[in-house]
Amino acid sequence: MPDKPRILDRKTVAQSRIFRVEALELQFANGALANYERLVGADGGAVLVVPLVDDETVLLIREYAAGREDYELALPKGRIETGEDPLAAANRELMEETGHGARRLSHLTALSIAPGYMSHITQVILAQDLYPQRMPGDEPEEIEVVPWPLAKIDALVEREDFSEARSLAALYLARERLNAGRL
Amino acid sequence: MPDKPRILDRKTVAQSRIFRVEALELQFANGALANYERLVGADGGAVLVVPLVDDETVLLIREYAAGREDYELALPKGRIETGEDPLAAANRELMEETGHGARRLSHLTALSIAPGYMSHITQVILAQDLYPQRMPGDEPEEIEVVPWPLAKIDALVEREDFSEARSLAALYLARERLNAGRL
Repeated sequence: MPDKPRILDRKTVAQSRIFRVEALELQFANGALANYERLVGADGGAVLVVPLVDDETVLLIREYAAGREDYELALPKGRIETGEDPLAAANRELMEETGHGARRLSHLTALSIAPGYMSHITQVILAQDLYPQRMPGDEPEEIEVVPWPLAKIDALVEREDFSEARSLAALYLARERLNAGRL
Repeated sequence: MPDKPRILDRKTVAQSRIFRVEALELQFANGALANYERLVGADGGAVLVVPLVDDETVLLIREYAAGREDYELALPKGRIETGEDPLAAANRELMEETGHGARRLSHLTALSIAPGYMSHITQVILAQDLYPQRMPGDEPEEIEVVPWPLAKIDALVEREDFSEARSLAALYLARERLNAGRL
């Protein structure tokens, strides 16, 4: 693997309430020059929660996804607040979005979504030993909670309203770890 | 599921060479108002290729990822050019990034990466019956090609330099379909 490219210049070229776009001028180890744009997250990343009701059933949520301009089925997720522990963030999002807390929370992996142009990282957290506990969130309408059998990931892939790569990767990973007796 | 929210206002609030940020003012079916920002892709989406050397081995690539500012291991991928067929785009990216063409290309699924705030969709394409064929790409340095056993997705998840959700989801999906004899 070559040395990392040298960063010759770095500047913010666009900024909105939520997004900041940075332009990078890079020189690769072989001398080649390249200009890239990247999105820089304003936060400490996000959590994605795999909430297990039992060893065979996971809780999905259905909510409006403004990027796709449609309702989407996915695992619960949200931003990690400044200084917040990822496991605590996962439990808070779980309470806000599904009305459940978890007595057992464990870190499965960290996922990027577009490493070529986004700094963003999502921590994937498994939640087990659930109990009813609701916390008010900032959602504009009630979120529908959809229990889904882990054995039916295939059927989920076929659905028009399920598309999110992180949710799919996390479901497969959780199922594999459960089957291997590692959870 | 409620009716989709009404879009009361939509405007571009930031723009760079590659990214456009749109602000949406929405009214949900229950009357609640909400403001969102979303990233609108300038293109027809992307392809992610699962190139199978044989039924047990996939080709990964290692290249510099400007978003993470580090080298990352992932499946080959790239933008679909205007008017380009997704299968043709997959074969072109495969030739540019791994030096192989594929005699058999099939569509596995479509993945979003952040449906809450990005319109982006990636088409996942399985590539089989590979043959040596290189096409020049726009990469600033040579890309390292890394054959990886499909049986070792677990070991990939443990690596610091592998993080991309789409690649992980696509690898699990391809393996599941192969094991089910559906490919």
